[in-house]
Amino acid sequence: MCEVNAYLRKGNDETLIMEKVYKLETSEGQIRIENLFGEQKFIKVPLKEIHFDENRMIFVEPNNTP
Amino acid sequence: MCEVNAYLRKGNDETLIMEKVYKLETSEGQIRIENLFGEQKFIKVPLKEIHFDENRMIFVEPNNTP
Repeated sequence: MCEVNAYLRKGNDETLIMEKVYKLETSEGQIRIENLFGEQKFIKVPLKEIHFDENRMIFVEPNNTP
Repeated sequence: MCEVNAYLRKGNDETLIMEKVYKLETSEGQIRIENLFGEQKFIKVPLKEIHFDENRMIFVEPNNTP
């Protein structure tokens, strides 16, 4: 069993956006994440890194979002 | 601690491409995965799913690769 916390990085800041993600799916340019509490989120910014050993995944907000 | 095995799906078949991945990074349209044995691979086909609870990530070979 493995769970990962999802963070959104903006500049030097990281915000926790979902805890205990157990599933990630990509589809048509967006990423769906789902956690053990039955919550789901659709992420439209790029996935940058997953550190499985630290139970962290990081999405990055581009600098110039329209 | 969390480790994930990486599979490549082609049609109905799945091939193990790397065991015990502990890190994934995306950069310029490709994905770098690295495992506990110091191996790394650069993956150019899309990441489709990660099942953290099953310690599996799945890349999918498009049907019509040139």
